[in-house]
Amino acid sequence: MGSEVKKFELFFERERKKIEKKISRSLKNREPISLYEPGFYVMEEGGKRLRPLLVLMSVKAVGGKLSNAYNAAVAVEFLHNFTLVHDDIMDNAEKRRGKVTLHKKYDVNTAILAGDSLLSVAYEFLLKDCNGNSKKILEAFTKGLVDVCEGQSLDKEFEIRKDVLLNEYILMIQLKTAAMIEMCCKIGAILGNGSDKEIKALSSFGKNIGIAFQIQDDLLDITGNEIELGKFIGGDLVEGKKTYLFIKALEKAKGNARKKLLKVIQEKGIANHEISDYKDLYIQLGVLNEAKKEIKKYTNRALNAIKDLSSENRNHFIWLAELLINRNK
Amino acid sequence: MGSEVKKFELFFERERKKIEKKISRSLKNREPISLYEPGFYVMEEGGKRLRPLLVLMSVKAVGGKLSNAYNAAVAVEFLHNFTLVHDDIMDNAEKRRGKVTLHKKYDVNTAILAGDSLLSVAYEFLLKDCNGNSKKILEAFTKGLVDVCEGQSLDKEFEIRKDVLLNEYILMIQLKTAAMIEMCCKIGAILGNGSDKEIKALSSFGKNIGIAFQIQDDLLDITGNEIELGKFIGGDLVEGKKTYLFIKALEKAKGNARKKLLKVIQEKGIANHEISDYKDLYIQLGVLNEAKKEIKKYTNRALNAIKDLSSENRNHFIWLAELLINRNK
Repeated sequence: MGSEVKKFELFFERERKKIEKKISRSLKNREPISLYEPGFYVMEEGGKRLRPLLVLMSVKAVGGKLSNAYNAAVAVEFLHNFTLVHDDIMDNAEKRRGKVTLHKKYDVNTAILAGDSLLSVAYEFLLKDCNGNSKKILEAFTKGLVDVCEGQSLDKEFEIRKDVLLNEYILMIQLKTAAMIEMCCKIGAILGNGSDKEIKALSSFGKNIGIAFQIQDDLLDITGNEIELGKFIGGDLVEGKKTYLFIKALEKAKGNARKKLLKVIQEKGIANHEISDYKDLYIQLGVLNEAKKEIKKYTNRALNAIKDLSSENRNHFIWLAELLINRNK
Repeated sequence: MGSEVKKFELFFERERKKIEKKISRSLKNREPISLYEPGFYVMEEGGKRLRPLLVLMSVKAVGGKLSNAYNAAVAVEFLHNFTLVHDDIMDNAEKRRGKVTLHKKYDVNTAILAGDSLLSVAYEFLLKDCNGNSKKILEAFTKGLVDVCEGQSLDKEFEIRKDVLLNEYILMIQLKTAAMIEMCCKIGAILGNGSDKEIKALSSFGKNIGIAFQIQDDLLDITGNEIELGKFIGGDLVEGKKTYLFIKALEKAKGNARKKLLKVIQEKGIANHEISDYKDLYIQLGVLNEAKKEIKKYTNRALNAIKDLSSENRNHFIWLAELLINRNK
């Protein structure tokens, strides 16, 4: 599969550059500058452009023309960045991808409005690629938006709730993270004129890989490499986040171990020097392995969903799944 | 025209009630409650439902079926309320329609997210009425959203700029206020299967009446009745807002009068006891009459745009225009 991997990497890099170029042109010469300059600050050179690439890979997987989907690919990136800008305000985050967050660089009002505007431009771009099947595409896109708002609300709710269950957590990450990845695959498949079966298969791939991706994110917070990750290990524990690991640990722990975990909730986080202690607790309770099993479960579901794709296309998605799951950052 | 007026009033009241009922059901039983309860707080029993009614009047004007447009009518109200929630955060407003604003009742984060969610539900509702002509309707709706973001950004920009010109002001209110009224008429006309000429005519009605409506709003701040208006007179001057009246006054004033106006900009507003003094200045400079002339100009343009409608439909819009322009609140 060596030469195939090379091909996928080349596809990824070539298409990423096209997306980058299209994004960098997208807000040029638009007025008022007071609105589009902050928007551009967020959009330029940010991240891996994973969501647009999933749109394009899905178009390709059903035998469609990539040229019919570049605006839609840009649209999902605008939608994604809208969520990041508003989430960062809500989390009072200082940095995002190593850059000062928008509301810190400007102010909260500018960031609220620039976020809204990114969403408006997302729909504008999406509509450019809607020909004949507009309703279906816009329904999928809008469902992604509805879900991400619901997921974010659950996430905020869980910050203050003390009794979050594992199935509630899975629902939250499905809405907040996986639904948008599912949507990217879905609209790619629709834009590529895929059959209903293909649309369903790719949507299912997206949803399941999205859940796996988020649990992997939770796991990396404990097992990741600080240098590669670009942030310190154990941040979720310090912030008292109710991650997969934490909820699973609480489910399994008894006696003193349980008391120790409840303390994290009560005190809304732990001190830096306690991190290794809690990591040991996670290991004792076996939750790191449980998380790995869960990631594998959802990854297998994702790959199983696309078993009827051609072997080349399937391999392309397998390659992507590995990129996402075996990542260090 | 007496019996005709009665008929319009009955139409207005009957349809308003239907819209009200549909809105009150729209968010029921949706979860998470942490998201949809704040959204419902904003949507319930709020305002005249002018925008949904414009959608329905436009459907009717082109001979379409109202029953095909109730979801779209609700959608424009959701979109409108999304803008109000975010604008109120940006303005740090305490009250809206006599009710505590959302971000004051809950908090800023809840209001940001509830606003986003209202917008997501707006698209969801709109899509229910999109059959066959989805792209055109969604393009018009999305343009309304893009414009309102641009208009709001200009409005915030003008708060700190000292040299706002009258044509810039007109552009701002066109984007911030008129574009959405235009959009309501436009999507109504499209949903009713109007001809291109009819769609254009009703859009032009909406745009021009929207501009007239906003200048009327500026005028009422000085000439309105405090009790009917439900807020004190001269609030725009106290806040140092660059309204039509203020910009026009600055354009005309010389010598001491000009100095007095520049003081409003420098000091970002005036004291309550200075209001009557500035009202006198506006009268001396003749800007109240200029505003009335401008309102008449845009109202005439609006009515001229729909001159080819049937006399009953035209009268209905004339009745609405009078309701909007000869209002006291």
